[in-house]
Amino acid sequence: MADDYYRVNLPESELPTQWYNVIPDLPAPPPPPLHPGTLEPAGPEDLAPLFPMALILQEVSSDSYIDIPGGVLDVLRLWRPSPLFRARRLEKALDTPAKIFYKYEGVSPAGSHKPNTAVPQAYYNSAEGVTKLTTETGAGQWGSALAFACSQYGMECEVWQVAASYRQKPYRKTMMELWGAKVHSSPSPVTEFGRELLAADPDHPGSLGIAISEAVSVAAADPAVRYSLGSVLNHVLMHQTVIGEEALRQLAMVDETPDLLVGCTGGGSNFGGLALPFLREKLAGNMAPTIRCVEPASCPTLTKGEYRYDFGDTACSTPLFKMHTLGHGFIPAAIHAGGLRYHGMSPLVSHIHDLGLTEAVAIPQSECFAAGLQFARTEGIVPAPEPTHALAATIREALACKESGESRTILTAMCGHGHLDLSAYESYISGAVSDFDLSDEAIAASLSSVPVLS
Amino acid sequence: MADDYYRVNLPESELPTQWYNVIPDLPAPPPPPLHPGTLEPAGPEDLAPLFPMALILQEVSSDSYIDIPGGVLDVLRLWRPSPLFRARRLEKALDTPAKIFYKYEGVSPAGSHKPNTAVPQAYYNSAEGVTKLTTETGAGQWGSALAFACSQYGMECEVWQVAASYRQKPYRKTMMELWGAKVHSSPSPVTEFGRELLAADPDHPGSLGIAISEAVSVAAADPAVRYSLGSVLNHVLMHQTVIGEEALRQLAMVDETPDLLVGCTGGGSNFGGLALPFLREKLAGNMAPTIRCVEPASCPTLTKGEYRYDFGDTACSTPLFKMHTLGHGFIPAAIHAGGLRYHGMSPLVSHIHDLGLTEAVAIPQSECFAAGLQFARTEGIVPAPEPTHALAATIREALACKESGESRTILTAMCGHGHLDLSAYESYISGAVSDFDLSDEAIAASLSSVPVLS
Repeated sequence: MADDYYRVNLPESELPTQWYNVIPDLPAPPPPPLHPGTLEPAGPEDLAPLFPMALILQEVSSDSYIDIPGGVLDVLRLWRPSPLFRARRLEKALDTPAKIFYKYEGVSPAGSHKPNTAVPQAYYNSAEGVTKLTTETGAGQWGSALAFACSQYGMECEVWQVAASYRQKPYRKTMMELWGAKVHSSPSPVTEFGRELLAADPDHPGSLGIAISEAVSVAAADPAVRYSLGSVLNHVLMHQTVIGEEALRQLAMVDETPDLLVGCTGGGSNFGGLALPFLREKLAGNMAPTIRCVEPASCPTLTKGEYRYDFGDTACSTPLFKMHTLGHGFIPAAIHAGGLRYHGMSPLVSHIHDLGLTEAVAIPQSECFAAGLQFARTEGIVPAPEPTHALAATIREALACKESGESRTILTAMCGHGHLDLSAYESYISGAVSDFDLSDEAIAASLSSVPVLS
Repeated sequence: MADDYYRVNLPESELPTQWYNVIPDLPAPPPPPLHPGTLEPAGPEDLAPLFPMALILQEVSSDSYIDIPGGVLDVLRLWRPSPLFRARRLEKALDTPAKIFYKYEGVSPAGSHKPNTAVPQAYYNSAEGVTKLTTETGAGQWGSALAFACSQYGMECEVWQVAASYRQKPYRKTMMELWGAKVHSSPSPVTEFGRELLAADPDHPGSLGIAISEAVSVAAADPAVRYSLGSVLNHVLMHQTVIGEEALRQLAMVDETPDLLVGCTGGGSNFGGLALPFLREKLAGNMAPTIRCVEPASCPTLTKGEYRYDFGDTACSTPLFKMHTLGHGFIPAAIHAGGLRYHGMSPLVSHIHDLGLTEAVAIPQSECFAAGLQFARTEGIVPAPEPTHALAATIREALACKESGESRTILTAMCGHGHLDLSAYESYISGAVSDFDLSDEAIAASLSSVPVLS
């Protein structure tokens, strides 16, 4: 490879053929989810009405590696391996001795890392005779990824999109429809729960919790239909490890080892996808990167939440997960990074953080948009609002290197493009993006409604 | 390379380092442009107020190859070489023995092939001390490409966007601003011409012709400012030949030779970029592909226009070019493929077509959207409305192969993604896209106002 490379391409022959499961390598196993009725550890049979058995077995697997089926690889190969970039122009603009690398997932058809798990989820469901998947979506990244994946396997896809987003961002809905999905504004007249909410308020703005309830209820009522989740769970993070496995090989191609790894954390899947293979190397003593989670200041799960059992949804219908949470009733401010507006954190990422293997920092959105703008003007790519959080943390570190004169190697998770988020940039450019104060009292009040279990 | 490849990646080391100029290889030279005042052949000095000398010399060059400067390659390397795909899922859906390849330019930061020429244009202007570029844009593909390119060389960029598009498609404007450009709705209060038009009609919808006049007038008034054009001219098509040079090498990697090459033609730059290196091979007897231009039925320049001298703009201020034209006063119907709504055709593409080296076909937009939808649902990528014209022609050919049992190898120019064109797909999905009747009488009436010169 020439010394002045910008992009490190991995040959298609180097596409990972196994997913990595970090759990067996951790110094302690993560606490189990609890059945919401019995409060006993939830077993595979509790999840069977919603998920296919192959995914349930992955969720609880103690194998370190799981083979990626050929029928999944054939779809991933449409855009994977994804490129690793050296951000030389950003380095120059910052006048930093740091080396900045970013792993870019915006090359997928849906424009983010989400298809990495949507594709295997559709594949395994299809293999078990499921003909339709339901899911919820907020801004639409996950819904469009699942719509794309279902189109690849000839499956139906039905998506409940939070009403406020359905109205404000019509183009994600169009993208889902383009791939053949049926999209409902949630609350919808399709479910009993939705009809009740609409009767009380025909203009109900909806929420992710409500959309989950609707998608779950339709899946549970029909044996040919299953539900699909885009983040949080172990198998989802495992599907995303192709990101980190590729990045390891790409950095090796240019003889680099990261001193710092940063990724934004919403439900944790993009962060986990990049970080977990590097954590394996760190635990094995092969490298010693600092691994830093970056979250929005208005939804500071890891930095200000508590590590305890809580529900995954607002309606308290999911199992209880031990995770960093702001309380299942917490409603994050309406920041533009919709993918980071979740009251909890992946139980696996939470556990790893509790073990002291990661750091966390919260950054207000105006600093993130400034980082996104600087990135676009130097590197060219327009980032989605979510990864601008990772970029802001990267720029902080690069400027610290400038101060100290130290040349650290930073690896940044760039999980998607912002082509469908340009209205957010328009708000920022016109000065209409503000930060939100979040008091410790508000967090304490939200947490007070979480049942005390451990 | 494995036999079941989907994507043919060219290593960065194989990025072409020279542009190809087809003119010396043609059996006859193209007719020269004429000065609009004297009607004599226009010389380099006539273009000097608008373009830097390096580009003017490229425009009239008789060299077969021109070296790409390192400062240009360093930016192109951010996304080039672009991938070549084998559309196996589309082939399967069509049940065709044809092999379908597509060269995908949507991987550039601006999402189309346009940066291939925007980057060298900004580079050469910057090298000659120009600090600002002006241009016009319709839907915004070209304006955003030039805004990106200017940001890479620290130049200012000022764009006049047709008022109707400025109002209807605000996100392209945001993308340009994100890269630091100043964007005006055209007609604008910034120029005398714009002020006149606004005084007569404050809600003037604008046109490309008006926007060109505004951008040109600002550039001509200041020696530090130049004007930049995104298609039509020889040097623009030459900059795009990196597309075809890469595709030649990629097809060779998988031992394939095209029997048919298709590309959409608006101003001709994407088509020329892919086709001209293949035309060189055809003229040299190394292969014998049919080369087919695809245009919208509502703007059928090559299939129903006349090959004669006409003005490049509506206001008759440019040189006269010998080209296939519908008449400089022709106003195409408001189809969604804004990049194909031009009354003329690149003089170079017109000349080659007149020499009998290419074919042309016109297709109505509803068939094109149907092709785009089928492509998205099989191959995953959402195409811009412009390349759906090439896809529609590809599908016609693939279905003809199914009928005949012949296995032809088709190479399709996929010049950009449709992430910022989802409103067009929304119209199509909801049944609101219609085709437009265009009578021979209307074309004849438009052509009657073109001066008879040859």
